[in-house]
Amino acid sequence: MQRFAFNLHSRDGAARCGTITTSRGEIRTPAFMPVGTAGTVKAMLPGSVRETGADILLGNTYHLMLRPGAERIAGLGGLHRFMNWDRPILTDSGGFQVMSLADLRKLTETGVTFRSHIDGSKHELTPERSMEIQRLLGSDIVMAFDECPALPAEGSRVAESMRLSMRWAERSKAAFGDRPGHALFGIQQGGVTRELREESAEALRAIGFDGYAVGGLAVGEGQEAMFGVLDYACDMLPDDRPRYLMGVGKPDDIVGAVKRGIDMMDCVLPSRSGRTGQAFTRRGVVNLKNARHADDPRPLDAECTCPACRSYSRAYLHHVFRAGEMISGMLLTWHNLHYFQEIMAGMRKAIAEGAFAEWEADFHATRAAGDIEPA
Amino acid sequence: MQRFAFNLHSRDGAARCGTITTSRGEIRTPAFMPVGTAGTVKAMLPGSVRETGADILLGNTYHLMLRPGAERIAGLGGLHRFMNWDRPILTDSGGFQVMSLADLRKLTETGVTFRSHIDGSKHELTPERSMEIQRLLGSDIVMAFDECPALPAEGSRVAESMRLSMRWAERSKAAFGDRPGHALFGIQQGGVTRELREESAEALRAIGFDGYAVGGLAVGEGQEAMFGVLDYACDMLPDDRPRYLMGVGKPDDIVGAVKRGIDMMDCVLPSRSGRTGQAFTRRGVVNLKNARHADDPRPLDAECTCPACRSYSRAYLHHVFRAGEMISGMLLTWHNLHYFQEIMAGMRKAIAEGAFAEWEADFHATRAAGDIEPA
Repeated sequence: MQRFAFNLHSRDGAARCGTITTSRGEIRTPAFMPVGTAGTVKAMLPGSVRETGADILLGNTYHLMLRPGAERIAGLGGLHRFMNWDRPILTDSGGFQVMSLADLRKLTETGVTFRSHIDGSKHELTPERSMEIQRLLGSDIVMAFDECPALPAEGSRVAESMRLSMRWAERSKAAFGDRPGHALFGIQQGGVTRELREESAEALRAIGFDGYAVGGLAVGEGQEAMFGVLDYACDMLPDDRPRYLMGVGKPDDIVGAVKRGIDMMDCVLPSRSGRTGQAFTRRGVVNLKNARHADDPRPLDAECTCPACRSYSRAYLHHVFRAGEMISGMLLTWHNLHYFQEIMAGMRKAIAEGAFAEWEADFHATRAAGDIEPA
Repeated sequence: MQRFAFNLHSRDGAARCGTITTSRGEIRTPAFMPVGTAGTVKAMLPGSVRETGADILLGNTYHLMLRPGAERIAGLGGLHRFMNWDRPILTDSGGFQVMSLADLRKLTETGVTFRSHIDGSKHELTPERSMEIQRLLGSDIVMAFDECPALPAEGSRVAESMRLSMRWAERSKAAFGDRPGHALFGIQQGGVTRELREESAEALRAIGFDGYAVGGLAVGEGQEAMFGVLDYACDMLPDDRPRYLMGVGKPDDIVGAVKRGIDMMDCVLPSRSGRTGQAFTRRGVVNLKNARHADDPRPLDAECTCPACRSYSRAYLHHVFRAGEMISGMLLTWHNLHYFQEIMAGMRKAIAEGAFAEWEADFHATRAAGDIEPA
């Protein structure tokens, strides 16, 4: 069994480029993980997700435990086989989504009891149950069970929540045990308060994890505040372990995070936006819903090599969105995931060449030039 | 420019196997045409449709004239380029769908005026306008403009409607003109009345078309009545031209139609059913919505080579249907279209080998054996 490992190849300022090795294959970092919430990256076949350049997917413990159920997936051979993705999968702990999606949540020292948003059935998530579910799913990278408040929140609430998450991190580590080939990541909390972030990082380092996530960001604090936290939070985490920024983000969030030392990210944005007619391109966001595209024979992005850009006009993408056709979500999701992976590949190359600053300047200049006006 | 041609290679009883040649490629007959209503075979990318074995698609004049508009598609280079399908396309005339979908229809000798079911805008379809729209779309096989009542209908209504359609067929031919590389098909009407079918066939033969459709079936008369009409209707149409049965059907309808001399068919059934969790298999219909599949590790059909059967369990297909995930419609549509094309390929091979009766017996016996029970 290939043991989990992280090798850094290059640095450029705080930005890093490396390889995470797992028993199911390598992950090139910085890595963007498409989100396969309920056992599918929405509107995509797994082979197509791989074609965009993804090395790893994220699966959601909360969704999968409710439907179809972790024991059921285990009985069917695990999540990889179930969803036809044989490369690495990272699963979140369920903590964040219980607090944002479930009904009648009750938070105690033990964990969270709640009712399913799907059928109202009663469930409990604890550090121990989260570890069990992630084991049943067969996750390659398991996240410690945590809890975090939406920001802005009172300082005392943020501190209490962080300390509870640190106690849960310790219980997660104990429950995870020794599983060669599988990794457990701890999650730093503490909101936008430097002292709390430091206290959290110390607690996590004392427990010891295979990787460290920066949690509790992208929850309403804004990009400036997020970057402000990343400016010091990355340095608080072990240099030789992957750093994962959870739930981020827009293209410029991703670039700013990598610049500050983040190695992994995930976000529903490329797939969710793809289903609502929004395309991310080098030149910014293009909204295909807009009537100005109705007669536009040009591709979404002439330099993009994804199927949507290679074979279709903006007029077609506009038409199928307006007509509510599934191919609209299929093509735009593919494009968005392709573009996100292109950003990651561009950053990896730039870091390896010591040219991250130039790459970043070009990234922002191209966006600032804006979308080409209709012909 | 390759001229339209039809070459018959083999006969087995009334069943025929041949090749239709168009400027955009060959169509192996008997052929099943997936329906790409609004410029997309729902839930499929065109390359995937081709992978199922489809040589030709059907496009709907009614839908496309309303949205995005025939002139717009022409301005964008035609329907093939618009929807990224470079092989043959057959377009219907709009007549059938105006009568079934549009609001406030008014039928006169000239044509039909109606309001769009999408935005209430007022439109007119006449034989001349239908020919113009189908030319603007760039259709390879154009259908004469016709009208047909739902069955059962009064005899006098069926006769009047048929005679109007024959006058429209003549106007369609005149308006179509001489377009090398493009074909015009006439449509036989007459309901389930043999004398009316004969009168209609005579009228069409007198006008002269590149191919002949059997219209006005699959509109409520039932399979037995439909086969009863096909038993004589095919013989009324020129032997050396393709015969196209419009809007049919279920797998056993298709087999029965080919047995009676039909060369081409189209139906929304495989794609529509795919989106509602229904799979057509050698062993009959499997409804993935059914809870009995929730823990079933077996593929939908172990002998099928489509992506849904090759890579997924029934449990997964059940899960993603229940969760409302797009991949459900994507995989089941792919499977259904694959299976329909497999039926066509099986029939073509059987006819070529003079073994249609054996093939048909096996087809029915496999279905009768039923779906394998859950393990």
